[in-house]
Amino acid sequence: MVCAVVGLGLMGGSFALATKNYFQKIIGIDHNKSHQKEALALGLVDEISSLKEASIVADVIVLAIPIRGIINALKELSEYNLKKESLIIDFGSTKETIVNECPKNIRKNLVASHPMAGTEYSGPQAAIADLYKNRVMVVCNIEESGENQLKKAFDIFKHLEMNIKIMDATEHDRHAAFISHMPHIVSFSIANAVLKQEDKEHIVTLAAGGFRDMSRLAKSNPHMWRDIFKENKKNLLNSIEAFKSELKKAEEMIKKEEWEKLCKWMETGNELHKIM
Amino acid sequence: MVCAVVGLGLMGGSFALATKNYFQKIIGIDHNKSHQKEALALGLVDEISSLKEASIVADVIVLAIPIRGIINALKELSEYNLKKESLIIDFGSTKETIVNECPKNIRKNLVASHPMAGTEYSGPQAAIADLYKNRVMVVCNIEESGENQLKKAFDIFKHLEMNIKIMDATEHDRHAAFISHMPHIVSFSIANAVLKQEDKEHIVTLAAGGFRDMSRLAKSNPHMWRDIFKENKKNLLNSIEAFKSELKKAEEMIKKEEWEKLCKWMETGNELHKIM
Repeated sequence: MVCAVVGLGLMGGSFALATKNYFQKIIGIDHNKSHQKEALALGLVDEISSLKEASIVADVIVLAIPIRGIINALKELSEYNLKKESLIIDFGSTKETIVNECPKNIRKNLVASHPMAGTEYSGPQAAIADLYKNRVMVVCNIEESGENQLKKAFDIFKHLEMNIKIMDATEHDRHAAFISHMPHIVSFSIANAVLKQEDKEHIVTLAAGGFRDMSRLAKSNPHMWRDIFKENKKNLLNSIEAFKSELKKAEEMIKKEEWEKLCKWMETGNELHKIM
Repeated sequence: MVCAVVGLGLMGGSFALATKNYFQKIIGIDHNKSHQKEALALGLVDEISSLKEASIVADVIVLAIPIRGIINALKELSEYNLKKESLIIDFGSTKETIVNECPKNIRKNLVASHPMAGTEYSGPQAAIADLYKNRVMVVCNIEESGENQLKKAFDIFKHLEMNIKIMDATEHDRHAAFISHMPHIVSFSIANAVLKQEDKEHIVTLAAGGFRDMSRLAKSNPHMWRDIFKENKKNLLNSIEAFKSELKKAEEMIKKEEWEKLCKWMETGNELHKIM
């Protein structure tokens, strides 16, 4: 099988590395010329092409680009001569707009997926072969995908050693806000709060593992995350609200010196790791 | 030299492990009988004793217990027959109350320290030999410590391969709020926000590295952290205020769909890792 990977950054590049022996050929597609060169030099892909040309020969097309780019690529693909059984997999971080805006004539070709994997780095250089291994792949609204496409997609995800979780797209977007989008806003808020302090350099000399963990997400790519936040605005604001309500509780217990109550509140928080 | 380690949890236990070859003998002191047994069984200490008996023979006394316990131990020690050149090192997470409440007659013996190290685990079983290696040891108000005591303490910290940072106790407590105490409150708030959701089990199936990092501190010991928050109330509330002000900015930019401004705000956050 021939695979076309659209977007040769961390996600697309890592996918290509991990499926090198699975596909006969991997074609890379990227608007960014230097990403094209790097991906070839790093051996992530066998050749560089355009979406139009790749769509003719590809059995599998992976869209590892931002959400708006995915929607545009789907519109383009709906006008090309795809192979009838072509599988399109998108890796968009939010899923509702993608399944809603996918042109009807290629909806069966699409398996809407979200790999719960990533690092704070980006670009072809950041690609790693085991990025997806043992991670969760959320697959949304499977009843709208073709049977053969779904079978093929699941086979690829199993080759990546991923755990497949089937979910409704609406539900996925709400969950993703809690598990990923809101924590990013929180991490950036911590980073900016420290940077606003006059003696910031002095403060960070005290940084140990805990602070490094809490501020790691603030290394993430602002443009990428702006687009994700934009797509998931409503859910993101709801999850920020839920977070703020807990923070407010803690703050008031501290102000009122309700230490035993604060202790109980923390004990509840400890429970998270029993279900995770 | 004989060392007495008071508190055989993660911090005291790890200190004992790392200084096994540095001291001729390590005496363990702990109110908790099962910690005493475990520490002996794990070979962290050579024997178990009381603070009173240990104070007669110890050249170095390490107080690796909560802040109020440290203050009580210092008051006890001030009434015992310490060796004149005895060194007392405390590992309290806040430093101002400790240096202020240390009895005058043993103030020269005390080197007020805070190792910027730890894990989310506790108890003797959690002790690891390299917990302190390459981490920062903050030493506060050194002008109030005896010259010989300071020299001895620095030699021990160098043996632990730590980076010594000298700081004013007041400044330390303000910095610690930003770098450690506020991030703990934030992490517990994230954990509790997720746990409040009806479909929490379903939400956490999506958890990847980012969420694990952001919620790791919510595994911490509630009783220990209640005591730290209590001691550093004012600074903690100030740092929460600074965090909330950044979160509010982000929230408003999202509500108003000021995406470019939000992008700039995140770019500022990216800067943190240049100074850390």
